[in-house]
Amino acid sequence: MTENRTVKILGIAGSLRAKSYNRALLRAAQELAPSDLGIEVFDEVGTLPLFNQDLETEGDPEPVARLKEAIRRNQGLLISTPEYNLSVPGVVKNLVDWASRPARESPLDGTPVGLMGATPGSTGTARAQSVLRQSFVFTNSPVLAQPEVLVGRARDRFDDEGRLTDDRTRDHLSRFLKALRDWVRLVGRKA
Amino acid sequence: MTENRTVKILGIAGSLRAKSYNRALLRAAQELAPSDLGIEVFDEVGTLPLFNQDLETEGDPEPVARLKEAIRRNQGLLISTPEYNLSVPGVVKNLVDWASRPARESPLDGTPVGLMGATPGSTGTARAQSVLRQSFVFTNSPVLAQPEVLVGRARDRFDDEGRLTDDRTRDHLSRFLKALRDWVRLVGRKA
Amino acid sequence: MTENRTVKILGIAGSLRAKSYNRALLRAAQELAPSDLGIEVFDEVGTLPLFNQDLETEGDPEPVARLKEAIRRNQGLLISTPEYNLSVPGVVKNLVDWASRPARESPLDGTPVGLMGATPGSTGTARAQSVLRQSFVFTNSPVLAQPEVLVGRARDRFDDEGRLTDDRTRDHLSRFLKALRDWVRLVGRKA
Amino acid sequence: MTENRTVKILGIAGSLRAKSYNRALLRAAQELAPSDLGIEVFDEVGTLPLFNQDLETEGDPEPVARLKEAIRRNQGLLISTPEYNLSVPGVVKNLVDWASRPARESPLDGTPVGLMGATPGSTGTARAQSVLRQSFVFTNSPVLAQPEVLVGRARDRFDDEGRLTDDRTRDHLSRFLKALRDWVRLVGRKA
Repeated sequence: MTENRTVKILGIAGSLRAKSYNRALLRAAQELAPSDLGIEVFDEVGTLPLFNQDLETEGDPEPVARLKEAIRRNQGLLISTPEYNLSVPGVVKNLVDWASRPARESPLDGTPVGLMGATPGSTGTARAQSVLRQSFVFTNSPVLAQPEVLVGRARDRFDDEGRLTDDRTRDHLSRFLKALRDWVRLVGRKA
Repeated sequence: MTENRTVKILGIAGSLRAKSYNRALLRAAQELAPSDLGIEVFDEVGTLPLFNQDLETEGDPEPVARLKEAIRRNQGLLISTPEYNLSVPGVVKNLVDWASRPARESPLDGTPVGLMGATPGSTGTARAQSVLRQSFVFTNSPVLAQPEVLVGRARDRFDDEGRLTDDRTRDHLSRFLKALRDWVRLVGRKA
Repeated sequence: MTENRTVKILGIAGSLRAKSYNRALLRAAQELAPSDLGIEVFDEVGTLPLFNQDLETEGDPEPVARLKEAIRRNQGLLISTPEYNLSVPGVVKNLVDWASRPARESPLDGTPVGLMGATPGSTGTARAQSVLRQSFVFTNSPVLAQPEVLVGRARDRFDDEGRLTDDRTRDHLSRFLKALRDWVRLVGRKA
Repeated sequence: MTENRTVKILGIAGSLRAKSYNRALLRAAQELAPSDLGIEVFDEVGTLPLFNQDLETEGDPEPVARLKEAIRRNQGLLISTPEYNLSVPGVVKNLVDWASRPARESPLDGTPVGLMGATPGSTGTARAQSVLRQSFVFTNSPVLAQPEVLVGRARDRFDDEGRLTDDRTRDHLSRFLKALRDWVRLVGRKA
């Protein structure tokens, strides 16, 4: 029965800062994931070159190839994104730009996606997620609608070691991860 | 009289591809600019590292420092952006992420902006520009509203040497550049 | 077998103009739908009052009740939207505002959605659809990602009687309707 | 001297609910406006019909004519908008749709705009404002960028009589109103 198999997804944090709240949120997701949801972390986002079609023509650079392979060997994708300038960070968009190629045959095509984000401010990456979600329309990647995970006022919710300590947020994240697991099972081609 | 002085703006094309339509569009803008609008091209976007706050803490990397200085010595900014995945390219967002720092005192604060874009498809970077425009709300950079420059079906409008040959587009671009010059004069602090 | 049953969806055109291209596009969808996709048209959008929570508290006005019932008795929703001012028309948003209530138990919750749009301009309602899509994140209504139906230059694609005559657009619409049917089957709770 | 003249703007709240937080926010703006900023309130939004081009062809309905006249006799526009379904309410978009006509000669053309919004949730209408702002690109209405007024958790900031009691929000609103006054003076054609 499909329902009993573990769902495997790839998790990517969209900040390069060592003490990033979004890395911390992704670690919390690994901790709180239900037993039948496995999250592999891809931690090489900072080594991707800026997207350049001329470069791509020569063949995917190694970190790009590893990113694509990591997406392909999982059934879904989970991105934890900061918000920079009311929008998706260049770091995150750059990884999507690489992974989206070639159009209609990319590793993202048909891959279910979950979005979450943490930020010191009160809007909790709402606008970054709106922008990022739009790109997955093009890549044909169905993004989970609800619940949204908007972790605002991050300083109050994580401790100094980057552990998510806020109980309401932990409960909400648990619910989101179950919904994401179910979403991958429902719409994923590889699930 | 302010009205007679030449307005100086910085032009940036958001694609790294050698034969990019957006580089070509920026060259066309230089060619078609009214005599009292000067466009300096910043061509080092591809050398910017991915934004990383830890890196920034050590001091702006050299290409970042040059980008910020180039924005500061001009009165306005003109970005020619491709559209990737219905959105702003990571390349473009990454330059905005660097230039937007530190918040409220960045080189972008108060700097008037014009947007344009070219693409092979029919929507002419409409969605990329919508996304990019939103970031300039945060940076407090007033973006010219009208006219919009959405150059769709770029293959029919540029020749093989990347020269903008379509007369209607050339006329429209000329009108846009005059409106941008007037906008910089109206809202620019340095004009 | 679920696969053999006819999928029933509700179609709504978001313009009140008698000769609206979006009404015409919806009629074309009815004509071109595969035999196992039925499209019921809801044509009372113009009789909905402007959303007012005080009014709602007294009980849904009759056209609102009929709209909600029509959504509930179908398995999916298809909206054909114009673009006004780079965004969703008030007419369309107003129907979504009514149908979205009460939150988390609305007729839209879990209802699969397809979007299409026609416009005289070249961008084909791209930005209206981006905006509208965002609202369905809140209502928890999974929107089909690909293919997009952006019918630009509508004057060249419909004849004077409002018949969609452009063959490429007809083929594209047919493909979209099959994808929508499959999407409703895949993610719909009632399919 | 222009600088000493009172700036007159039209204020519109985008909710029809009697106890609306956005009406309350608009009243607070009237109270907190600097002495050289006058805010006239247009309170007939609920009487506007849904936009219909056939109706418009017969001549603007009376409330539409009054809306357009009210915009024309002021120098700027201030909209206090709720957020419905992560977006602009149909009520607000509908008034923009009417006021935006005819394109390029509408009362909105060149009219400076300020946006603010209140909501019970934590994101403070961030996404509604992003969507609304995009429409003013089409209407050629320059929207003030900073500061943003996102009044989240409205229940804690207004008392039972709808008076804005939160001191930080009052201070922030005062700063916004001064910036809006300056913006109208800077970019307004009628100031």
